[in-house]
Amino acid sequence: MITEEKRPALRPFHNATAAFAEGTDSPREFLERCIAVIEEDQPKFHAFVNLDLTYARAAADASGKRWKEGAPLSSIDGLPVGIKDIIETANMPTEMGSPLFAGYRSGRDAASVAALREAGAVVVGKTVTTEFAASVPRETRNPWDPARTPGGSSSGSACAVGDGMLPAALGTQVIGSILRPASYCGAFGYKPSVGGINRGGSLDYHSQSCQGVIAASLEDAWLTAREITARAGGDPGFPGIRGPRAVPEPRKPARLAFLQTAGWPAATDDAKEQLQSVLDRFRAAGITIADRSGDSDIAKAEDAIAGAMQLSTTINTWDFRWPLNVFARNMDHSKLSSVMQERLVLAERMTLEEYQDAIAERDRLRAIFAVLADHFDAAVTLTAPDAAPLGLESTGNPAFVVPGSMLGVPAITLPLMRTQGLPLGLQLLGYSGRDADLFSVARAVAVL
Amino acid sequence: MITEEKRPALRPFHNATAAFAEGTDSPREFLERCIAVIEEDQPKFHAFVNLDLTYARAAADASGKRWKEGAPLSSIDGLPVGIKDIIETANMPTEMGSPLFAGYRSGRDAASVAALREAGAVVVGKTVTTEFAASVPRETRNPWDPARTPGGSSSGSACAVGDGMLPAALGTQVIGSILRPASYCGAFGYKPSVGGINRGGSLDYHSQSCQGVIAASLEDAWLTAREITARAGGDPGFPGIRGPRAVPEPRKPARLAFLQTAGWPAATDDAKEQLQSVLDRFRAAGITIADRSGDSDIAKAEDAIAGAMQLSTTINTWDFRWPLNVFARNMDHSKLSSVMQERLVLAERMTLEEYQDAIAERDRLRAIFAVLADHFDAAVTLTAPDAAPLGLESTGNPAFVVPGSMLGVPAITLPLMRTQGLPLGLQLLGYSGRDADLFSVARAVAVL
Repeated sequence: MITEEKRPALRPFHNATAAFAEGTDSPREFLERCIAVIEEDQPKFHAFVNLDLTYARAAADASGKRWKEGAPLSSIDGLPVGIKDIIETANMPTEMGSPLFAGYRSGRDAASVAALREAGAVVVGKTVTTEFAASVPRETRNPWDPARTPGGSSSGSACAVGDGMLPAALGTQVIGSILRPASYCGAFGYKPSVGGINRGGSLDYHSQSCQGVIAASLEDAWLTAREITARAGGDPGFPGIRGPRAVPEPRKPARLAFLQTAGWPAATDDAKEQLQSVLDRFRAAGITIADRSGDSDIAKAEDAIAGAMQLSTTINTWDFRWPLNVFARNMDHSKLSSVMQERLVLAERMTLEEYQDAIAERDRLRAIFAVLADHFDAAVTLTAPDAAPLGLESTGNPAFVVPGSMLGVPAITLPLMRTQGLPLGLQLLGYSGRDADLFSVARAVAVL
Repeated sequence: MITEEKRPALRPFHNATAAFAEGTDSPREFLERCIAVIEEDQPKFHAFVNLDLTYARAAADASGKRWKEGAPLSSIDGLPVGIKDIIETANMPTEMGSPLFAGYRSGRDAASVAALREAGAVVVGKTVTTEFAASVPRETRNPWDPARTPGGSSSGSACAVGDGMLPAALGTQVIGSILRPASYCGAFGYKPSVGGINRGGSLDYHSQSCQGVIAASLEDAWLTAREITARAGGDPGFPGIRGPRAVPEPRKPARLAFLQTAGWPAATDDAKEQLQSVLDRFRAAGITIADRSGDSDIAKAEDAIAGAMQLSTTINTWDFRWPLNVFARNMDHSKLSSVMQERLVLAERMTLEEYQDAIAERDRLRAIFAVLADHFDAAVTLTAPDAAPLGLESTGNPAFVVPGSMLGVPAITLPLMRTQGLPLGLQLLGYSGRDADLFSVARAVAVL
């Protein structure tokens, strides 16, 4: 375990830009500070699968010129950013965490990456993902303790941000792939309302998957996601992330719904105690916290999310039948993991009617959860049952985060707690399309 | 113009399979009859951009073996099928109608193509599309008169089916790209409810676009689409095409809503007369035909679809910002048509808020149209204002077909009429998710 003195430190970007404008700091100097950490820690933690520092330095210089001229392209002009390696980049391979795509270059930017470049952000590298952003882990280690998993599937993004290599990195979440690794690595994580960020050019075909941001601050998370959406929109037919271009103002919630979720039995006593003490602080600040024992709508919501993992797995299995079947048929089948090969067998056993039933059930459960909006500013729970587990074989238990994915609601993890001296996230769940409101709540409670 | 004696003839597949089972015909012989027409007419009409007859013959032989053993994979086992060239195929390039993608091979099958192969269908070739399935035409000619457009963007698919080269071919429609060319080439065309067929692996990112089928019979259209959906589903998160695996039984409608649409002023007197005489036949068969003058819901629906072209163009412009921007930035910009370059300028001028307003408006208009379901089995109108226009510069006027695209409802064109000795389609519009009901109506009225 890393000693107290050597703890990884987050490296926020939003509060550096004033110095860029004044000329006392520059995007290139900011980037070089990131690169210093990358050069020291990448060999130990393996956050990146590819880096393009030559490009990044040139992009940072160009950004610096714009800041100097008083004409930055956006509030994230100069932001050093990592891209999860299922998302295409014109200047680097996109290897999908799979030997099937070793060295693969699509030759184009994904929609979100194109938008980041339009906004002046500096694409630094591709961050390690599990195989096809699913469960088979790759080489990344937890920057707080390299004997532990960083979580997955946005493993490299969480590691890079948690370690201070970068202020922000793109991730995707269909089960728990943004919030869980963010919790394990001590970073902020933001999964938008489903459809919030355009997934064009990403290997990301699941109906409840969503692109999002792991960041060193809530401000960085919002600005990154919102500036992407302003230029690339959400998924086609979706409104994208709604709300102001600037970071939503903090607004202390009056009432929060505490959810146990199906993860509660797995949570350690210490995790529960840590959560309790956070909730006590919230109560002391005048926030009412209700739970299933005292509120029938919360009880119904708990019942609605109890089977989130199973229902999500059913839906995901069908949603990924293609392209998994053509990876197996048109490419080298032996390069698929046994997990993926088994998943294909399950997918090919499913019928369209089973899928139709599953998505209808998901709609029903979403409507039950949405009722909470009448009485609660947001829901609150743990992000994970414990700190990152030891070992790299598993990316950890997603039971606390899969409900947000299934519900399609915005979700945020705040690195507010510690257990075993390691980070543990507090999770906030909001309401579909109301991402800005959730940020207002999150900014308010993060400082209580 | 082609003389009466040499008129192109449709080549249905569904009524050939009994002979496959009996052994009096075979998929290979069926394919060879198709190939004979292709070899004669492809040099004149240019329906295909790529053919793989070696593969097709082997696939047909394999299908024949299955029929002989009494074990066909599906009702479309052995179906020779064409694939619009924005849809990826593992064994042929996917050139997108653009010099940017000349010779491009993705190395994998799109979801619908993988499903067709699973069902035993025989992929024969890639059919010509306009540039990125938009408005700039390529080399295909109308098989009824090579001096005329085949329509677009599913130009080659309509030509191949209308000419009897193939019984079925995949198309896509975001404005009018399945039904319009089907009308011009004398084929049946079916655009499913939006989301009805999985578009994975197709250059098809528009929120109101849909993959569908141009076919030699209603039966072929349904069976092809339904067998794809059974294996590939609809777009992720959509239920796909609902209904029986077999062709829905004919069911004579009691009431049809006649819509003029914004296309009416452009319709020729003869087209209007032809339609009138079809509607007279329907009335003689006991079907009530109502219109805007006598029904306030129809009047409201007419108002709702009056601006379909403009609203669709706004939505499509944003939806195609990506990947058009990376085609321009990451690839050879000079290989984009001026039309595409101008479209990118318009896309980059749009804001997310304009898009949000446009899709909200589309939702509002869809709800107005849906009210017709209370009183009408389907809506009916022309598919095009006239026969295919002379010249290859334009793919024709889509005013009659864009409402179905904007509304996201299932739409069928029936080659029931002639004008100037050339084909003209009758269009039926149904209700979202009720594709099977529309087929029942279509089968009933097609024989009146």
